[in-house]
Amino acid sequence: MNDLQQTLEQLRLALGDGAVVTGADISRRHYSDWTGHAPACPAALLLPRTTEQVASALRICSNAQQPVVPQGGMTGLAGGAVPRETDIALSLERLRGIEEIDPAAATISVWAGTTLQEIQQAALDAGFIFPLDLGARGSCQIGGNIATNAGGNAVIRYGMTRDLVLGLEVVLADGRVLNLLNKMIKNNCGYDLKQCFIGSEGTLGVITRAVLKLAPQPGETTTLLCALPDYASAVSLLRRVQRSVGTPQAYELMWQDFFRLGVSWLENPTAPMSLDHPLYVLLECASPRELLEQTLEEAFAVGEVVDAVLASSQTQARALWKIREATGEFPLRMKPLNFDISLPIGQIGDFAERCRQRLEQRWPGNHSVYFGHIGDSNLHLTVDSASLPEPAPILEVEELVYSAVGELGGSVSAEHGIGLLKRDFLHHSVSLEARQAMQQLKDCFDPKGILNPGKILG
Amino acid sequence: MNDLQQTLEQLRLALGDGAVVTGADISRRHYSDWTGHAPACPAALLLPRTTEQVASALRICSNAQQPVVPQGGMTGLAGGAVPRETDIALSLERLRGIEEIDPAAATISVWAGTTLQEIQQAALDAGFIFPLDLGARGSCQIGGNIATNAGGNAVIRYGMTRDLVLGLEVVLADGRVLNLLNKMIKNNCGYDLKQCFIGSEGTLGVITRAVLKLAPQPGETTTLLCALPDYASAVSLLRRVQRSVGTPQAYELMWQDFFRLGVSWLENPTAPMSLDHPLYVLLECASPRELLEQTLEEAFAVGEVVDAVLASSQTQARALWKIREATGEFPLRMKPLNFDISLPIGQIGDFAERCRQRLEQRWPGNHSVYFGHIGDSNLHLTVDSASLPEPAPILEVEELVYSAVGELGGSVSAEHGIGLLKRDFLHHSVSLEARQAMQQLKDCFDPKGILNPGKILG
Repeated sequence: MNDLQQTLEQLRLALGDGAVVTGADISRRHYSDWTGHAPACPAALLLPRTTEQVASALRICSNAQQPVVPQGGMTGLAGGAVPRETDIALSLERLRGIEEIDPAAATISVWAGTTLQEIQQAALDAGFIFPLDLGARGSCQIGGNIATNAGGNAVIRYGMTRDLVLGLEVVLADGRVLNLLNKMIKNNCGYDLKQCFIGSEGTLGVITRAVLKLAPQPGETTTLLCALPDYASAVSLLRRVQRSVGTPQAYELMWQDFFRLGVSWLENPTAPMSLDHPLYVLLECASPRELLEQTLEEAFAVGEVVDAVLASSQTQARALWKIREATGEFPLRMKPLNFDISLPIGQIGDFAERCRQRLEQRWPGNHSVYFGHIGDSNLHLTVDSASLPEPAPILEVEELVYSAVGELGGSVSAEHGIGLLKRDFLHHSVSLEARQAMQQLKDCFDPKGILNPGKILG
Repeated sequence: MNDLQQTLEQLRLALGDGAVVTGADISRRHYSDWTGHAPACPAALLLPRTTEQVASALRICSNAQQPVVPQGGMTGLAGGAVPRETDIALSLERLRGIEEIDPAAATISVWAGTTLQEIQQAALDAGFIFPLDLGARGSCQIGGNIATNAGGNAVIRYGMTRDLVLGLEVVLADGRVLNLLNKMIKNNCGYDLKQCFIGSEGTLGVITRAVLKLAPQPGETTTLLCALPDYASAVSLLRRVQRSVGTPQAYELMWQDFFRLGVSWLENPTAPMSLDHPLYVLLECASPRELLEQTLEEAFAVGEVVDAVLASSQTQARALWKIREATGEFPLRMKPLNFDISLPIGQIGDFAERCRQRLEQRWPGNHSVYFGHIGDSNLHLTVDSASLPEPAPILEVEELVYSAVGELGGSVSAEHGIGLLKRDFLHHSVSLEARQAMQQLKDCFDPKGILNPGKILG
């Protein structure tokens, strides 16, 4: 028996035969994430049912110096959960379910393998919302959301996943279980260790349970599409809305090219307003409609807004969102090279200009579109690889964009994480000293380097 | 020359003579914090003016294995900045000032020695607020606020200090400077290292600069005092208000004893309502007054509220706040033994009952009063030592209260931190495994143990 076989033998003894899957019995969805990057069949797939089993598995793998790749719903976009053939994949999918809803504390306690959608539904049933929301809600798992500090649609109002986590249970690389479960908003009992594991992409510990904050159900929302004369107006309108009606639930800025594309892809491609404005913002607010109308009037008066449509029904609101949701059709209608970046809010407009110019200069006639959750500092930029020379110079485009991000003090990953795919660009946003300190933290919690090796730091 | 003299010589060379103070030249305010606990004249007081000087000082002290105690405004309540005679105190007071306000990003960049009040004022002048607020605002320094993850008056609406920090500059124990400055809400570029230093009470690194989030100025606020029939009503009223008018700016629950005391200490001790209700809540909302009135009517209808006074002027609002601010007079009118604890919100009512009973059983006739920021899970409980036998059994009272907190899964420190004074009670809230992991983190960033030794972990 070689080392791996011995390790698998020990794992079967500890977890039971049904929890250690190998070879062709491993479903292909454990080979790679939504990017499809470097798919590989791992040496084994572990399917523990309890925290204790996760702990046993890690103890065994740690003793054997066997690399382990934690896996959630496999919906990541940075290759963070992709195994190599020599890795053992550890799926949390059987640690699933809602443990408790505490309506007085406004918390929900869940197992790591629970899907985001199940949690959202349980919250709704209890008269709250769990405000984390993203496209993969039906298949992503909360453990993965926490391990990647997921962002999504409601960050401007409710924050990132980090802001919604009150407590965690984490298994360290050597199998020790850290009970960091907590329901309190205020708790200053020494180092807030859970922060280390949030956003660490499974490289410092395996999250098995979490206590999450619930929010009150918002009242009826109003949806508004505005045309803006320039980027500065997008920022000042946001601040105006925040002052007068409160922080919106969504503030989605679309540059002209994006808006035109979105309208042209509608089933009935009728534009809700002229296609000639430089920028459009889709705004959703949970506040009295009259208050929003009054704010809009003030914005018109100072020229921040030059045209507007206030949805008068849910159907009309859905129709406006359809334009923004063109992103969902990118994979069908172009060969999208997507960027998830962030910049200081005031500089996003200049960045988009600069980036477009540089791309045009380097590859004349290429096609790129821009939209952003600018209230969160987040810009999504998509280059259509089909508009680039063949074979598409992917790495060169990435280097062009990420170095432009670095020049303005921006981040090469706003909400998707680093994983494998952005590892080589991390230096544009993170100094050498900070990367060294990250390595220190890695060595502190995983001295043998068995947890998700190669991710984030390489 | 002994070791200390040699170290001081090197420090004088690196920082200049004026930045290394010794003996009687050290102001007594560097001897202890607001608790007055164990005052001591440190071996020297360093007053660096730049990040580079902080780095040099730590490099020299690290080489000499010389303990260093970072100090801010010395307004802490847990002994976290109190030096021993063999320690060198490192004050950040000369790293002072606002570096930049970025109105588009809604951020303010500040030096660690800037007082909270200066930051609040600069934010106001720029049309924003910096929502962190606490009694020591005029003398506490933002570096200390961050190092202790300060709470304060507005946590229910805006979160703890941690939630307001976007970026940090930190000097590690060995003098390495980590530039973790950042203006973006979304930034998932590897481990969020700044989280390690927030709330670490100067034991992992020295904070020199910070980028903070600003919030929009709220509109006019409405102040409301309600009498409640029981604790459950305090929780359901809070959730009702959150659903209908949004999260309040303040939600201060006073138990009957506290309320009676507060009223009796007024200059003109006229009660705004009957003194016979079990609980009173002072509530402040930035929302249209009519909406709040409507919510109040609903609460009356279901019996959550049994009496109410809606302040009709700023003067009346101030008068209502005066009752809650009785805490400011505790040191003058009793011998207060103050507790800053937190519990799952639904259990605070039971806890207060249980605690009062146990205290009465042990020391019949003793006097304790209770109030809490219950929306933040935070309860403040004060025992009047004058009502206890002489000499007051302080440690025994602490053990009684903190063990009761531990039984309910609460925290022995909600917002004041651990420092020296709560170190021996940490085990009631933090498991052995978690304390060991904290020690690992300490050893990771400060392997020689020179930064604020003895604080938090001992």
